[in-house]
Amino acid sequence: MKIYYATGNKGKVDLINMIYKDMDIEVIQENIETPELQSLDCREVAKMSAEFAAKLLGKPVLKNDSGLVIDELNGFPGALAKYTEDTLGSEGYLKLLEGKKNRRCHWVEALAYSEPNKEAVVFESLSYGTISDEIRGERGDAFDKIFIPDGDTRTFAEMTTEEHLKSFDTKAYFELLKYLFKEQ
Amino acid sequence: MKIYYATGNKGKVDLINMIYKDMDIEVIQENIETPELQSLDCREVAKMSAEFAAKLLGKPVLKNDSGLVIDELNGFPGALAKYTEDTLGSEGYLKLLEGKKNRRCHWVEALAYSEPNKEAVVFESLSYGTISDEIRGERGDAFDKIFIPDGDTRTFAEMTTEEHLKSFDTKAYFELLKYLFKEQ
Repeated sequence: MKIYYATGNKGKVDLINMIYKDMDIEVIQENIETPELQSLDCREVAKMSAEFAAKLLGKPVLKNDSGLVIDELNGFPGALAKYTEDTLGSEGYLKLLEGKKNRRCHWVEALAYSEPNKEAVVFESLSYGTISDEIRGERGDAFDKIFIPDGDTRTFAEMTTEEHLKSFDTKAYFELLKYLFKEQ
Repeated sequence: MKIYYATGNKGKVDLINMIYKDMDIEVIQENIETPELQSLDCREVAKMSAEFAAKLLGKPVLKNDSGLVIDELNGFPGALAKYTEDTLGSEGYLKLLEGKKNRRCHWVEALAYSEPNKEAVVFESLSYGTISDEIRGERGDAFDKIFIPDGDTRTFAEMTTEEHLKSFDTKAYFELLKYLFKEQ
């Protein structure tokens, strides 16, 4: 079975092919831009983009959207993470949480799968953690430098890429796999 | 001439009809939901929504998108204003600007006009001001309580609705008017 991953990021395609190794599924990169909905909800953003791309390409399409949900900030920035990262950076988040006791957060990875002109199905991985008191580590994005996953004392930015990937929940990938086999 | 304003807010339709009084233009409310693009740029958001609605309705459609641009925050929150307002509120903005000297900002009002299957044209009004040091006033949204327009010492929330409207730049409405008469 061939499915098409609408993304400019080859690393995402390699990751899913690694997870689906030895399965009869080939994930092929489609480097196309899809419109992203203005919403805090990653599931909603991924769903709309996947449906758009599947209709455009006439092929079964996979699309992911990820974001950070900070409990004390009422779910902000959620799916808007990319824009807040570019403008506020790690410092902005630490400032917004100054003096706050509740630093719980989770990382959302929403994976939407759509066949042309069908409603997309969406699967979700959630990785829980806390926001650090200060910027720690060099590697990765603004969030990586302040996100300490549960079960560790380091931020993502203080880990190697392999450790970082391992500490992420990958449930969405497996749920998609189950769905694909059931539908066949 | 009849044009259709895609908005759930009757006040916006009344305002533009008031501005276009005695002109041969009737603006009619179309209470439909349009997808909004994830972007900091109000022009881009309004344009995509107007084109979507014009195609869907088969009529000439008007769509606005507004947002707040804070210079010191690299343009944040821009068109994402609605979501940051719901999550961070006035307090969040004041916190992000704590200790910052540059409190310059501007309010963007982008007005997109699209005829079915044609690229939309976009006009923009910009109202400049500064972010206050504390929350002041009761009326309006989170931004109204911290936005002091140039030429005044009060926040929007400390003004009456009439004063608030008067202090806004309405250039976009007049530019649209000129465009409509030129195209006829």
